[in-house]
Amino acid sequence: MIQDAPIGVFDSGVGGLTVFREIMRQMPNEKIVYFGDTARVPYGSKSKDTITRYARQIVRFLQTHQVKTIVVACNTASAYALEELEKELDIPVIGVVKPGARVAAEATRNGRIGVIGTEATISSSIYSQYIKELNSNAIISGKACPLFVPLVEEGLLQDPVTDEIAKRYLAELIDIDIDTLILGCTHYPLIRSTIAKVMGERVNLVNPAYETARELKGMLGEMDLLSRSQPGLGSNQYQFYVSDKADKFIRFANSIIKYGILSAKQVNIEEF
Amino acid sequence: MIQDAPIGVFDSGVGGLTVFREIMRQMPNEKIVYFGDTARVPYGSKSKDTITRYARQIVRFLQTHQVKTIVVACNTASAYALEELEKELDIPVIGVVKPGARVAAEATRNGRIGVIGTEATISSSIYSQYIKELNSNAIISGKACPLFVPLVEEGLLQDPVTDEIAKRYLAELIDIDIDTLILGCTHYPLIRSTIAKVMGERVNLVNPAYETARELKGMLGEMDLLSRSQPGLGSNQYQFYVSDKADKFIRFANSIIKYGILSAKQVNIEEF
Repeated sequence: MIQDAPIGVFDSGVGGLTVFREIMRQMPNEKIVYFGDTARVPYGSKSKDTITRYARQIVRFLQTHQVKTIVVACNTASAYALEELEKELDIPVIGVVKPGARVAAEATRNGRIGVIGTEATISSSIYSQYIKELNSNAIISGKACPLFVPLVEEGLLQDPVTDEIAKRYLAELIDIDIDTLILGCTHYPLIRSTIAKVMGERVNLVNPAYETARELKGMLGEMDLLSRSQPGLGSNQYQFYVSDKADKFIRFANSIIKYGILSAKQVNIEEF
Repeated sequence: MIQDAPIGVFDSGVGGLTVFREIMRQMPNEKIVYFGDTARVPYGSKSKDTITRYARQIVRFLQTHQVKTIVVACNTASAYALEELEKELDIPVIGVVKPGARVAAEATRNGRIGVIGTEATISSSIYSQYIKELNSNAIISGKACPLFVPLVEEGLLQDPVTDEIAKRYLAELIDIDIDTLILGCTHYPLIRSTIAKVMGERVNLVNPAYETARELKGMLGEMDLLSRSQPGLGSNQYQFYVSDKADKFIRFANSIIKYGILSAKQVNIEEF
């Protein structure tokens, strides 16, 4: 039965595990196949053509697992490749950008919304575009924060250096008095407390990972694609694939997800 | 004539341009074809198998330009892939690690040498291995500095944040009283002044880019492979290829090389 097929989730690397984690929490009956493109990470500084080519290869790989839907758990890939994937696929695809944009458009009181993300996500203006469709009076300001990902990957989650970099990146968003800030990169929820401290408690932080899982659940429910029962023991409920060696991925993954990730398999993604 | 063939130089991205720059300076008669793997950068956090697969593809690309020799202008690729490439190729190949190791082994007075580089370069222990062959009494200490590349790429060449990160990374090398430090990543010469300030003037900094160009010149001379005359106007003395969009590469390249880099071409490197 199609309802028992897994959900395919992919990201440039480990960041998308924050989305995986939300799907796990909100839909405990679902099987998930996760792919992290660790051999080509990061995506945030690369071009639209390159990201789209990578996304297509990953989708072809996920389809070998008969996934019932695909979640693009990476803001950069959602910004650059989602529209193409939607055209090309006959299963539903969901990205992290639209759900985040929708909540921000609803949450703002003064109409001033900030978006932080990779260079690619910010220069695509994709959040701005979606928010404007829902709230044409909103003023959206984007700011690329290229050091946040390496700081998170270096483990400096609570550190004076991360505070200092956050102050510099966020100063212009504070100056224009935004009341809502979208964490437009899957790594950023991991330094949420630093960002919250710098922005102050009046600013509402939107985590698209949470909203994406919620929207995915609604969409699968409407399409009658939700799994009807908890997968049995030994059914490989969660499967992890990466394009580089698995050991580093497994260490990082186990640091952010409670579920013991016993193994991940390496795939030569260029062959797909 | 084989002497008129170009030198092939490759790197994971822009860092290898510091090696390119030295070859230009020391061998102004040579043609150079440079390849930067900007679609898959960085290499420093990836595995040996992945780096070796990437290096082989790039070598196949460079060979379509009938290069007379190949310079692996990336410490990580030199650490992981050089030995394989040497076995497989019938033209001379040179990496940046051996020349840097040789100078450090000769320069040290107290026998204590530090090496800084990417995670991959440091965990390969390749510098240590080469230095030990030349000076078996040397004590070599490696330290991975994963934030240096993103800090350089963010333009924080002289900045309190870079100072602070450098102090943390280098503290253990200062504690053990090294007198020689190898800048084991092609980006690091761009923050040489910060590193020098933290290490103090008693520590000798070794830039493998300079040594590599010198060694390359000696090797080509011995093999009678040096170009005999300056290439004529319109001969495309320097050609640049990248695996992602060229515009960003061109901007960065022009910021570190005096020669006006008029253009770079994008190549789908996965097809090689």
